Amino acid sequence: MKVNGRNIRPIWLDDSLKIVKVIDQRRLPHEFVIADLRTVDDVIDAIQKMYVRGAPLIGVTAAYGVYLAALGSVGGNIENGYLIKEGERLKAARPTAVNLSWAVDTVLSEIVKRESRDEKVDIACKEAERIAETEAERCCRIGENGAELIEKISLRKKGRPVNILTHCNAGWLACIEYGTATAPIYAAFQNGIDIHVWVDETRPLNQGARLTAWEMLHQGVKHTIITDNTAGHLMQHRMVDMVIVGSDRTTRNGDVANKIGTYLVALAAKDNGIPFYVALPSSSFDWTIKDGINEIPIEERDPDEVKYVQGLNDGRIRSVLVPSADSPAANFAFDVTPARLVTAFITERGICPATEAGIRNLFPDKGSSGFEQLDFYR
Amino acid sequence: MKVNGRNIRPIWLDDSLKIVKVIDQRRLPHEFVIADLRTVDDVIDAIQKMYVRGAPLIGVTAAYGVYLAALGSVGGNIENGYLIKEGERLKAARPTAVNLSWAVDTVLSEIVKRESRDEKVDIACKEAERIAETEAERCCRIGENGAELIEKISLRKKGRPVNILTHCNAGWLACIEYGTATAPIYAAFQNGIDIHVWVDETRPLNQGARLTAWEMLHQGVKHTIITDNTAGHLMQHRMVDMVIVGSDRTTRNGDVANKIGTYLVALAAKDNGIPFYVALPSSSFDWTIKDGINEIPIEERDPDEVKYVQGLNDGRIRSVLVPSADSPAANFAFDVTPARLVTAFITERGICPATEAGIRNLFPDKGSSGFEQLDFYR
Repeated sequence: MKVNGRNIRPIWLDDSLKIVKVIDQRRLPHEFVIADLRTVDDVIDAIQKMYVRGAPLIGVTAAYGVYLAALGSVGGNIENGYLIKEGERLKAARPTAVNLSWAVDTVLSEIVKRESRDEKVDIACKEAERIAETEAERCCRIGENGAELIEKISLRKKGRPVNILTHCNAGWLACIEYGTATAPIYAAFQNGIDIHVWVDETRPLNQGARLTAWEMLHQGVKHTIITDNTAGHLMQHRMVDMVIVGSDRTTRNGDVANKIGTYLVALAAKDNGIPFYVALPSSSFDWTIKDGINEIPIEERDPDEVKYVQGLNDGRIRSVLVPSADSPAANFAFDVTPARLVTAFITERGICPATEAGIRNLFPDKGSSGFEQLDFYR
Repeated sequence: MKVNGRNIRPIWLDDSLKIVKVIDQRRLPHEFVIADLRTVDDVIDAIQKMYVRGAPLIGVTAAYGVYLAALGSVGGNIENGYLIKEGERLKAARPTAVNLSWAVDTVLSEIVKRESRDEKVDIACKEAERIAETEAERCCRIGENGAELIEKISLRKKGRPVNILTHCNAGWLACIEYGTATAPIYAAFQNGIDIHVWVDETRPLNQGARLTAWEMLHQGVKHTIITDNTAGHLMQHRMVDMVIVGSDRTTRNGDVANKIGTYLVALAAKDNGIPFYVALPSSSFDWTIKDGINEIPIEERDPDEVKYVQGLNDGRIRSVLVPSADSPAANFAFDVTPARLVTAFITERGICPATEAGIRNLFPDKGSSGFEQLDFYR
């Protein structure tokens, strides 16, 4: 997508094929810094410290991590056991996004079948790149499918701006291109629909204020940043036409883990009769579980992410302590929105109701995890 | 209440009877600064810039403002018309908290009856002090009444900690003593109940993280700061036993205007079967209106309060810009929680259901605003 008019992706392999390049998203919007990942440890660090974030991008980064594991190993052969162990380390980097283990298992399941080191390295690279392209393609389809929903509202409103609320950043920065929640917005915008986006700032790490708003600026989409507390008030006053969010993991019956606070937005949408859509690629479904609240692990991160806020002061990025240093804080990174609050899913294969039957109808071929397949090779 | 073991209130008249002293709450918790208010303009500035905030304290500050208006006038007599005009200026300082106009009208309705300047000045001072004492006394009663609710939960939990979630600061800093939402907490804590408070940080001005957590630290109450996004997740996992919040204005049938985000907390409480209490003195009821969402004016404040966050860095209070300077923001300061989401009100006269009949039952003597009475004197 465009940054200052130039096309860029949040991750790519450099020409030497030895370094994975990523945008260091912690510095945005104030600094545009590219980070080099050369080892599995670099990849784990980038995922944990959130140089990269967002379920699809975490998956793609980890896929390249498996490639770097293969590339970095020495000797004429590579033990599958070693690669699987490195894969486990990658999968443990963050617990909630299911794309992480899906992508690692997908690459691993291909390379464990190959014999020589060169073959393994080669197929790992190809698989990582294939996953990246596939995710970009899925986001493109999500955009086309979701744009229809926006265009219907625009018609009903006789061309007046369609007000869309989104939470966190499920934009191209979180994916490869287009984004998930933002893909329908960008697609409808390109089709000439008048759109205004309410951007939840998304505490504690402010991915909405820092990343989504920055994306909107560079694509030229009208937007307004609000505190996460504001969704209910706007909806009560009919200032929101629809909500679109992403997902880090969705159960096979439609419970949605996404950035903390998503559940509150969904409750407000329900209470005010406003459609609440979740846009996600099939890689974000966890086909193995049904009870989102009890089965999806919710990451707890460093409480200092709540107590300190980072921003620009005097030309420098600084971190300020908001409360007294003596007060403790807790930092749950995600929550689960029960399927009953979701109007529908926007996927690469189309739009479906948030029910097991609805999801199954679009994805009859899915159901077993890559992980289960992999057990065969241990 | 205690600050470093010493008793203090957020507002008082100094010994000369010419200066109103207030804690400059914008600097807390990092700096403890006392500001001097000498004129009506000082008072308006302190209310608008939020040196003082919270419905009861805004009311008391404005009452002292009327006193300063009387005191600052020159000549042997004071025109009632002048005082009423100064009162109007004070009432326009912020739109949402009804205590502001209630307190101004209460002082005005007494002084317009007096003839001489000295009498007017004297009665204005006495009325402002009486209002301050009355609000402190009301908060004390709210504490006693609400503590019973907490103690019942403690009994049911066999003494295990009672987890109370609160939003914004409806503490002693927002009142004169005890607070409204915090009064039951402090009272139950003093009775030896094991309490833990989840403190919503309360964006954009972080009154929870900066003020409520600081109050809890100084009173010795266990607490944890969370982002406003977190309430739903905690409730889904049974980590909240009850919610207590304050109110800036409550209609006579129980719709509650309070800090933006309160409505989202109430929705989450309802969805999870967790009691949601609103603690307020009778001065926060607006007896003249019934439809909170359409009749309570919601203040829109400077968008920079959303875009910039203030905190401590390198020993100095600094303000950091979180998003790009080019992205617009909106800053609605309050929202309205419909009565149907409120379990009950905790008032100085007892606990009542959030219905017109329930409220009327506790306050049969209320109903006409001071403003209506005042019209008589124009």
